Amino acid sequence: MTKQQALQTLFDKIEAGRALSIAGSLIHWDAATTGVPEKSLPKRSAATGWLYGEQFRRFIAPDTLEAVETLETVKKELTEYEQVMVREIGREYRKLKAVPPEEYQAYCALTAEAENVWETAREKCDYDMIQPYYEKIMEYQRRLCDWYGYEKHPYDALLDDYEKGATVEKLDIFFSTLREKIVPLLKKITEQSNKPEEITGVFDLEKQRELTIWLADFTGYDRTRGKIGEVEHPFCSTITPDDVRITTKYHEKNILSSIYSVIHECGHAIYEQNMDGEKTKYGIANEASMGMHESQSRLYENIVGRSRAFTERLLPRLQEKFDYFKQWDEEMLYRAVNIARPSLIRIEADELTYSLHIMVRYELEKDIITGKIKVSDLPGLWADKYEEIIGMRPKTLAEGVLQDVHWSGGMVGYFPSYAIGTAYGVQMMHEIKKSIDVDAAVRKENLSPITNWLAENIHKHGEVYSPDELLKKATGESFNPAYYANYLEEKFTKLYL
Amino acid sequence: MTKQQALQTLFDKIEAGRALSIAGSLIHWDAATTGVPEKSLPKRSAATGWLYGEQFRRFIAPDTLEAVETLETVKKELTEYEQVMVREIGREYRKLKAVPPEEYQAYCALTAEAENVWETAREKCDYDMIQPYYEKIMEYQRRLCDWYGYEKHPYDALLDDYEKGATVEKLDIFFSTLREKIVPLLKKITEQSNKPEEITGVFDLEKQRELTIWLADFTGYDRTRGKIGEVEHPFCSTITPDDVRITTKYHEKNILSSIYSVIHECGHAIYEQNMDGEKTKYGIANEASMGMHESQSRLYENIVGRSRAFTERLLPRLQEKFDYFKQWDEEMLYRAVNIARPSLIRIEADELTYSLHIMVRYELEKDIITGKIKVSDLPGLWADKYEEIIGMRPKTLAEGVLQDVHWSGGMVGYFPSYAIGTAYGVQMMHEIKKSIDVDAAVRKENLSPITNWLAENIHKHGEVYSPDELLKKATGESFNPAYYANYLEEKFTKLYL
Repeated sequence: MTKQQALQTLFDKIEAGRALSIAGSLIHWDAATTGVPEKSLPKRSAATGWLYGEQFRRFIAPDTLEAVETLETVKKELTEYEQVMVREIGREYRKLKAVPPEEYQAYCALTAEAENVWETAREKCDYDMIQPYYEKIMEYQRRLCDWYGYEKHPYDALLDDYEKGATVEKLDIFFSTLREKIVPLLKKITEQSNKPEEITGVFDLEKQRELTIWLADFTGYDRTRGKIGEVEHPFCSTITPDDVRITTKYHEKNILSSIYSVIHECGHAIYEQNMDGEKTKYGIANEASMGMHESQSRLYENIVGRSRAFTERLLPRLQEKFDYFKQWDEEMLYRAVNIARPSLIRIEADELTYSLHIMVRYELEKDIITGKIKVSDLPGLWADKYEEIIGMRPKTLAEGVLQDVHWSGGMVGYFPSYAIGTAYGVQMMHEIKKSIDVDAAVRKENLSPITNWLAENIHKHGEVYSPDELLKKATGESFNPAYYANYLEEKFTKLYL
Repeated sequence: MTKQQALQTLFDKIEAGRALSIAGSLIHWDAATTGVPEKSLPKRSAATGWLYGEQFRRFIAPDTLEAVETLETVKKELTEYEQVMVREIGREYRKLKAVPPEEYQAYCALTAEAENVWETAREKCDYDMIQPYYEKIMEYQRRLCDWYGYEKHPYDALLDDYEKGATVEKLDIFFSTLREKIVPLLKKITEQSNKPEEITGVFDLEKQRELTIWLADFTGYDRTRGKIGEVEHPFCSTITPDDVRITTKYHEKNILSSIYSVIHECGHAIYEQNMDGEKTKYGIANEASMGMHESQSRLYENIVGRSRAFTERLLPRLQEKFDYFKQWDEEMLYRAVNIARPSLIRIEADELTYSLHIMVRYELEKDIITGKIKVSDLPGLWADKYEEIIGMRPKTLAEGVLQDVHWSGGMVGYFPSYAIGTAYGVQMMHEIKKSIDVDAAVRKENLSPITNWLAENIHKHGEVYSPDELLKKATGESFNPAYYANYLEEKFTKLYL
């Protein structure tokens, strides 16, 4: 294979993969936004199975490796993007090849089944139902650590799969920094009596939909290169870089739910919309990591969206649409969107406590991978850790160890990305504020200075750099959890104490 | 290639084609029902281009022919469905291969451009803009006749492409039968003064949407295996046999538009929903022809939907939802949905005159293919024929020769299917009425005896039989245009004279 043939082989595979994945994304979008006809699932699954299978077959074919190896020998002759393409495809290929195919296939079937079982187990609060699945899954994950390889801690192999460069060593520091500052702070907040007023009332869905348009435009999400759908569980979906779609769910009695899900998904979408199109050909117009993606959604949702400056702009919009807010003032609204309190359900957690929920999962995953704890111990240990870290003990398994789908889906090592990402965002914002008056931009309803900074320093690099390299380039410093811990401490101390 | 290898080769291609075409259908559905983000087209087109290209590449690969030829030598060992599969793939493959690839590619580019030019030409009523495109397209179509081959008339080659077995010989008889009965009848109707009252008024869209559900259920369309969308130009789209979707467009001031488009698309959808799933594996769960598909939509829309029995059931539904209809009686409604009069626009034509619009196009296409008339003569001849057959002369090109997209899209020989299909439907209904009390079924709001007959005699055969074979099996007689001509004569004489 010549260099040109090798490049063409990879370009062809990338083009095919892109078209096939567009099809997959649209099938998913269609099902989520317009529903799936009751009896259509089996035939639809057969087709999506073929489409995903074809992506896999093309990727795993021997000529992929041949092309990668050919190009690795002439690395110096390649452009930067070609080098990244070869690096990423090589990494992904070798990871897949490290797993014995029969084991991989059996595992896919196992997790597909486990996800269904988990749903019932959660409904019935029956851990015995899911325990044998968790045992097999964790056993596979342990072997995965060996197949992937690691330097210090086996869990590092899994962490790295979602967050390149993440290790137990780094995460232990991250979580202990948080623990030290946030756990006592939360305790103080819980004990004092100065509570914000909560938003009650019923809010017309049509008016909430109008608000969504304002919110999306406010964030800088480009609606000419995307659209907004309604779904049960909001997500952002990239059909193409010029068609990045967001979704939300409206609740009559919970107006904040949709407001913050929209801002959150817009953060994801803006990242996708700003990845340089030039990179698409090389298949490297992807996020630097799961955490880096989450950094963008959380930066918009929390640091911007839950700022005092933003609630000043939000209040008149709310008052214009809903009589309910006529009696509210800016301070009340600012406090209402920043209610912090112990809770049991991760996906409903507030800005202050969110990472504590992740901390519980991180500590359990780490010990389960080394075999220090057993799958059968998880329910009790989960409850103990919630009590210890968050100050609340789950009464049922559904609000305890059975609340997340991740383990039954085989996603072990994924949770930490959520917390690290949030912290990345804070570190970026610290840097942004050195040159940009963020509050002034928010008050002008023009986030473009912020978005431009992010586009230039984060978004446009796709997956050229590892998260830590990217952070260092953008902020002049490696990942430093102190920014996040300090930010939370300062914000919530001011708000509550 | 062994027999087993040959079968597997075709099964694999069919499976891949199905998955790829599901992707294509969903991309089209998504664009039509939820809109296309302004700037998303180029990247989206690149992906759909790849998906369609991949379907084509897989089909046209040499192993397709090898498999077909292998199986043709062992035809007697094949099951019925395998034989049909081999016949259909062989036919399609040889047709595609008959066209020199460079010519085909140039022609695809030409028609893509011509469709855009046609839009502007129609807007500006400028025939000079489109004429050179029409000339090249018709020239290609003439060569296509030679490439495809024909026995008697070159136009037969094109007709057969859309309607297997259709020939000038048969269509001349069909259209002259119609001409003899319908042209004088239309003249009489136009001249007499007994005019039905027209529906005016404004109709709430939400209530029209509710009516759609009733209509869809009434026809027997299975909503658990499909869904209903809103679009600019209604269509039916088969995602999978268990996910057949219909669409409609609501007009505040024209309630009949959506009512009859829904019944029409349900007719198409029921055909798709009832094609036996067993045939999917063999790629032969397809309509017997374009005309056969149209026979189903028109049977439901016109023969059932514009019957007196149906308007008796429709009226109380309308009265329940819209005060406007409080003063209406059944006879008024029956007459209002059956207004017949000369008109210029095919897609807005009524049941009586529809096929006359097709007749104009048929006569022009036939003569243009033989070179008897020139492309430059079309506007004048079009107007002359409309005056002669329908009794109205277009004042502009937009309401004349430029009204249809078909010629710019290279669809020559397609129009007759619409008329033949309508006539097939009447012939079927004539047979159905021998054993089923159709009006009673309609009055009971239970069309299942009719739908079961169609499912058993038409739908479930997919493309196993040619349209004429199918009609003969179902009605005991080859296609006989007299049923259609008599039906129209009887119905509209009673209504008007």
